[in-house]
Amino acid sequence: MQYLEKPLSQLLNVARSRPQRRLVVAAAEDKSVLQAVWEARNEKIVAPVLVGDSAKIREILRQLGGSADDWEIVHEPDASAAASRSVGLIREGKGEILMKGYLPTAVLLKAVLHKENGIRESSMLSHVTLFEIPSYQKLLGLSDAAINIQPTVEEKAEIIRNAVKVFHRLGVEKPLVAVLGPVETVNPKIESTVHAAMLAVMQVRKQIPGCIIDGPLAMDNAISAEAARHKHIESPVAGNADILIAPDLDAANILYKSLIFFAGAVSAAIITGARVPVVLTSRSDSERSKLLSIALAAALE
Amino acid sequence: MQYLEKPLSQLLNVARSRPQRRLVVAAAEDKSVLQAVWEARNEKIVAPVLVGDSAKIREILRQLGGSADDWEIVHEPDASAAASRSVGLIREGKGEILMKGYLPTAVLLKAVLHKENGIRESSMLSHVTLFEIPSYQKLLGLSDAAINIQPTVEEKAEIIRNAVKVFHRLGVEKPLVAVLGPVETVNPKIESTVHAAMLAVMQVRKQIPGCIIDGPLAMDNAISAEAARHKHIESPVAGNADILIAPDLDAANILYKSLIFFAGAVSAAIITGARVPVVLTSRSDSERSKLLSIALAAALE
Repeated sequence: MQYLEKPLSQLLNVARSRPQRRLVVAAAEDKSVLQAVWEARNEKIVAPVLVGDSAKIREILRQLGGSADDWEIVHEPDASAAASRSVGLIREGKGEILMKGYLPTAVLLKAVLHKENGIRESSMLSHVTLFEIPSYQKLLGLSDAAINIQPTVEEKAEIIRNAVKVFHRLGVEKPLVAVLGPVETVNPKIESTVHAAMLAVMQVRKQIPGCIIDGPLAMDNAISAEAARHKHIESPVAGNADILIAPDLDAANILYKSLIFFAGAVSAAIITGARVPVVLTSRSDSERSKLLSIALAAALE
Repeated sequence: MQYLEKPLSQLLNVARSRPQRRLVVAAAEDKSVLQAVWEARNEKIVAPVLVGDSAKIREILRQLGGSADDWEIVHEPDASAAASRSVGLIREGKGEILMKGYLPTAVLLKAVLHKENGIRESSMLSHVTLFEIPSYQKLLGLSDAAINIQPTVEEKAEIIRNAVKVFHRLGVEKPLVAVLGPVETVNPKIESTVHAAMLAVMQVRKQIPGCIIDGPLAMDNAISAEAARHKHIESPVAGNADILIAPDLDAANILYKSLIFFAGAVSAAIITGARVPVVLTSRSDSERSKLLSIALAAALE
C-alpha cells in the first residue's frame, strides 16, 4: 500500500489485525471517553486499563449498560496523580497507547513531557489528523491542528518527521508531503512560503528522510491535479498530497474544522512524538471520530 | 433582507434590477476575462469599456463568436498606461466598476492607489469573497483571502469596515461578523485571539459601526449552532456568521480553497476600499465565478 485507501474505517480492520494493544486511560471517569473505549474494546482493538476515580468509573460503566467486574481499574482519584501513574504504566511497558480522560490537556502533557519520568521521544509533540474527505481520492493527513501555535522552521521539520513516521507505521513508504502557503511561489514577505522552500530543500538534502516534500503549494495545487496543471507545477506531490503541513495553528485549525463542518469529512487524530501514541479527543469530536482515533493509535505497526 | 439568501446566482437578478453599470476593463486583451465580460453584457448587467490593445481585443471578440463593432474600445497597448487610463475613466465618472485584464495585479493596484490620480477611498484595499456553500444556511463572506498578508489589528478593523460596507450595499443592515481563531478563548500566546477580542470590544465601543462582531470564535463555533451550544457560547454571531474574518492570509487563502475544492462552494469576489469595486479574478477561477464576481460588483447599491 503506497497510500492510504479510503474509507477511514479500514483503520478498525488494520487495528484488529495487529496484536491487541493495552490502552491506558488517564482520569478515565469521563462518559464520552469511556463510551469510545467501550466500543474499541468490543471491537477487540484494545485491552483498556482505566486509571482514575474507581467509584465514578464503575458508575459510568454501569450507565453504559455493563458491569465493571471484568475491567482493569487502577484507583487514583487525583487527576494529576492519575496522569503520572498512567505515564508510569507506559514506562513500565504495561501500556502501548495513552488516552486522555477527564483532566486538562496541559496536566496530561506535563506528565508525558516530564524530564525524568516522562515518555517524550521526539524533540517535540505534534498532532496528526487523518481525514476521509468525500471529494478526495485517498485519506489525507494534516499537521498540526492542535498543539504548536507558531512553529519555527526547525519545529515544522520535526512536525513533518512525526507525521511521516505515522504514515510509515501505517505502511506508506514515502508519503507525499505538501507544505502549504497562500501562494505557490516563494515570497520573502510571506513566512509560510519561505519555510516551505526551506523544508523542500531539507528533504532533498536528506535532512528529512522517508518522504517527498514539495512547497510552497497553495491548497488547490496540493490536492487538485487540475489546479496544479493549470499553474504548470510539475511535482509528484502537487495534486496528490498524502500529508498537508499548515503554516501555523490558525490555518491548520480553521482548515480542520472547515473539512469536518463544510466538506463532510470524518477524522481520526493522535498526538505523536511520545514513546506511544496519545489519544486526546475533544468533547466536540463525534463518537465515531473518538473510536477511529483509538483505532488509528492501535493500527500503527 | 437581513441576511444574504442562497443561491449566489441571485446576484445576477439583483444586478439586473440596478441601473446598468459601466465596467472598465484594464488591458482587456484576455480571453477568459473577455468571456466573462461577454456573458455579463449578454445578461445586461454591465456596459463594458475595453481599454487595451485594440487589435488583440477585436481578435478575441471574433474568436468568442461575435463582432467587435458594437463594443466600446479604447486603444492603449501598454499595460501600465492601460491601467492609468482605466483608473482615469473611473475618476472622470465614465465607469462604475474596474476589472483587471491581462496585466499584473500589482500594476493595476499601483494605478488604483496612485496618490494624485488614484481612486483609493478607504485607508486600505481588501478582498471580500461571498460563498455559496451547500452545507451552510446562507451566503457567507470571507476576508481577506488575497491581499493583506499579516494584517495588524488596526488593519483588521479596516478589513471589517470594508466587508461590512459590501454587506450594507447588498441590503444587510447589521451583518454578523465572526473573527476567527484556532480556539474560542483569549490566549495571549495566540495573536489571532488577542486581535479578535480587541475587535469585538471595538464594535461595542462603536469604533466599528453597522455590524455585530464576536471573537475569538473557532471555525466550528462561528458556523455551527450545535458546536456553539456545545461550548456554551452565547452570542448572536456564533453558529450564524455572515462574515468570517481570518487571522491572516495563510488561513484565509487555505480556507477559501478548501471551500471551493473540498466543500463544493461557488464564489464571487471583489476588491473593496477603492472608489468603485474592483473585479480581479484569477485564471484558476471558474467561468461561473468570474461572471458572478462581475455580478457582485454590479449588485452593490
